[in-house]
Amino acid sequence: MSKNILVVGSVALDSVSTIHGRTKRALGGSAVHFSLSASQFAPVKLVGVVGGDFPPSFRKLLSKRNIDLKGMQVMPGRTFHWEGSYDRDFKNARTIATHLNVFEHFKPALSPEHKTCGVLFLANIDPDLQRDVLGQMAKPRLVACDTMNYWISLKKKSLRNLLAKVNLLFINEEEARQLTKEYNLITAAKMVRKMGPQAVVIKRGDSGSMLFYGNDVLAMPAQPVEKVVDPTGAGDTFAGGFMGYLAASPDWRDVNVLKRAMAYGTVMSSFSVENFSVRRTHKLSTREIDRRFLKYTKSLLVD
Amino acid sequence: MSKNILVVGSVALDSVSTIHGRTKRALGGSAVHFSLSASQFAPVKLVGVVGGDFPPSFRKLLSKRNIDLKGMQVMPGRTFHWEGSYDRDFKNARTIATHLNVFEHFKPALSPEHKTCGVLFLANIDPDLQRDVLGQMAKPRLVACDTMNYWISLKKKSLRNLLAKVNLLFINEEEARQLTKEYNLITAAKMVRKMGPQAVVIKRGDSGSMLFYGNDVLAMPAQPVEKVVDPTGAGDTFAGGFMGYLAASPDWRDVNVLKRAMAYGTVMSSFSVENFSVRRTHKLSTREIDRRFLKYTKSLLVD
Repeated sequence: MSKNILVVGSVALDSVSTIHGRTKRALGGSAVHFSLSASQFAPVKLVGVVGGDFPPSFRKLLSKRNIDLKGMQVMPGRTFHWEGSYDRDFKNARTIATHLNVFEHFKPALSPEHKTCGVLFLANIDPDLQRDVLGQMAKPRLVACDTMNYWISLKKKSLRNLLAKVNLLFINEEEARQLTKEYNLITAAKMVRKMGPQAVVIKRGDSGSMLFYGNDVLAMPAQPVEKVVDPTGAGDTFAGGFMGYLAASPDWRDVNVLKRAMAYGTVMSSFSVENFSVRRTHKLSTREIDRRFLKYTKSLLVD
Repeated sequence: MSKNILVVGSVALDSVSTIHGRTKRALGGSAVHFSLSASQFAPVKLVGVVGGDFPPSFRKLLSKRNIDLKGMQVMPGRTFHWEGSYDRDFKNARTIATHLNVFEHFKPALSPEHKTCGVLFLANIDPDLQRDVLGQMAKPRLVACDTMNYWISLKKKSLRNLLAKVNLLFINEEEARQLTKEYNLITAAKMVRKMGPQAVVIKRGDSGSMLFYGNDVLAMPAQPVEKVVDPTGAGDTFAGGFMGYLAASPDWRDVNVLKRAMAYGTVMSSFSVENFSVRRTHKLSTREIDRRFLKYTKSLLVD
């Protein structure tokens, strides 16, 4: 059983401003946030693309963790750069500019090592690319994907084709409603599961998350955070903790394993929002994670 | 130790429309929703006012439960009547009309039986009236109150005077922000507790609730409901389950007791939203409540 996780997604430079300050060209991207989180639990192989301007210090930061960067190709040009800001409610990112740069021509080609990973996470990229990557894989035992409003609007058919082939979908509540045209999240999740995924996780920001699996509907709260500095990447950090824990578990199809995965995802994302970029997550210790996990699960124990 | 709960608040006729239908002059009001919920756990004495038009069937429905109506005075005129509607997201009630009627002249006068109740819940009414009622009490061991945006805007000083004297405040997240001018709920709750209450419960609708007590910050999710029919009274039903459970407990100052109270409040409010008015809550069985409580607390158990 391969515990290796393959993640395919964006590697970015983020310029973000919030009420607590701003960053310029800080390390970001879905594959980065996911990898730093997941690698706390299982080995990660990252497939992505950067430009010639990608700082060696960022590469070093990632490779210090259990993250294999052989699939992070360097292309002539500049790295994907996102500029955005958040209001004090941190609910919606306002995009100021998206410079796709080399990411516009991203066409993931997997190596034999990548193809045999047991677990695949398709971060939020074009669903046609997601499907292409999945087609290259040998026989992963667990495939999960994320998506976004943009693809639901513009490439719904491609997305539906992908969903038919994945085990697990991570999706925001607004996106779940957009995809199904249904407001109630229980009903929406049922509709999404009919499209393919055996399990659906609906992410609700500071309202927590919901897991739909078998006959179970489980709502879990967010871990309260007193100073939210930057929510960028919180969803991917959540998915990283979740998938990392599943990859390290012998059987992800056990609802108690999925519940622990929800708790680890929640805990990892609560760290993520406490600082800009990956400042809080890139050198987290197992002890810090375990301590917050215990605090969180204990807070939910009603006895 | 008196387990009796005194509730002072509105008794109303509600005309509500939602995507699932409408009611005309159905039973409602904060004291009613609270009483039907709390009386599942401890004896309740209701203090309120109705007009000559208050249907005998509604009076009967309430007295069938463990609710003493000797304090529900009948005044010449018509009963408080609220007309409102909700969008499909059920987030904000749109008030179409508020006919205060006899409620405009509500001036609660407590009987000796009322004054010796051990537990007092001051539902959302004018904070000057809330303070007046509290002043009439003998020596309650637990005093809780609710409020609303209207009083925070118009009678902030009166409200602050009241808060200095209560043990527990129930408040919506928007109201907590309005009262403190602070967006983060942990920080806002700290500020509210400095105003007086030892414990603060922030209600967040379908995002659950948060308890702030001692050094504990506890977030609990809402029980997912597949068909939300009418959210009117859900907050008072929550407070009813919460306060009812505390009234029946020997020591409300124990955080584990408070957690169980949160869970009972959550469960009671999840029933409440499943139908209009009090249709779902007025004849709930202990068995139904216990079953959902177990389901809810089990769903939160990560092991």
